Amino acid sequence: MVQQSPIRDGEVAVVPQPATDAGLVFIGRCHTPWTDRQSCPRQGSFDGPTCRIEIFEPWVAALDGIAQFERLEVLYWLYQARRDLVRQSPKSDGRTRGTFSLRSPVRPNPIGTHIVRLIGVDGASLMVRGLDCLDGTPLIDLKPDRASFGPLAPRQEGDDQIGDAR
Amino acid sequence: MVQQSPIRDGEVAVVPQPATDAGLVFIGRCHTPWTDRQSCPRQGSFDGPTCRIEIFEPWVAALDGIAQFERLEVLYWLYQARRDLVRQSPKSDGRTRGTFSLRSPVRPNPIGTHIVRLIGVDGASLMVRGLDCLDGTPLIDLKPDRASFGPLAPRQEGDDQIGDAR
Repeated sequence: MVQQSPIRDGEVAVVPQPATDAGLVFIGRCHTPWTDRQSCPRQGSFDGPTCRIEIFEPWVAALDGIAQFERLEVLYWLYQARRDLVRQSPKSDGRTRGTFSLRSPVRPNPIGTHIVRLIGVDGASLMVRGLDCLDGTPLIDLKPDRASFGPLAPRQEGDDQIGDAR
Repeated sequence: MVQQSPIRDGEVAVVPQPATDAGLVFIGRCHTPWTDRQSCPRQGSFDGPTCRIEIFEPWVAALDGIAQFERLEVLYWLYQARRDLVRQSPKSDGRTRGTFSLRSPVRPNPIGTHIVRLIGVDGASLMVRGLDCLDGTPLIDLKPDRASFGPLAPRQEGDDQIGDAR
């Protein structure tokens, strides 16, 4: 178990509201070579090690058709991250800035979003490259990368709205 | 209130686990011109109408430094979407496929991820273009687009792992 990161100089913690506005269900788990945060890549590479994304039931049927996409967007739950900092001082430069101008795992809702390259599908498992999370990280969503996916539905009124009405 | 979408031919609903594995806090709200799903764009455009993202306290301080980024990644909660379909038949072609091979709002954890263009920051409000969600959609995260943001922290062991160990 990795220790919760301590507060650094300049960082500001708040008392957040209880996280009860909506609930998540973990739909799978990421299997990666990294068991502590010190060895994780800071940003996954499409040439990185093959990792396995395991899908839990009853969601396995939802994988149908996914093999046609080379790039997937993966959302996972950064379960070890603290959620109460509004200002952070990254170790690298110690310069303090707001949480929303960082991609740090420390945020009110610690959701990581990542693009991976799909190597293969085997039953309830996806083999991918480009993950950068800890082994065992809970999965919360999986979708085709927006860049490789046009909307299927017919155009609607809002699609043609350019600029402002005023 | 928009009606929950009915099940179409070929669609399969499951009985999901209770969504209690993790909890979310709504950190703000999206103000857009669209009040029903029939008028929403299917995919927002950087030339689309200016929309306002309102940040709630105690998170406003977390905006510090965000003005330097032109592209932001926005995560929001698609509160009107059903969560129990593993196979879906989009209206456009009626062809049934797994939920994870679609970017439909209907998914076990209905989180939308989107890239917007930041126009300006005014106190607790961000003016952006490119949103495509309903007016009032709850905000759950905001971060610099990964394409415009390199990791700040020093390289770690995993950053140099290429290919597989075996």
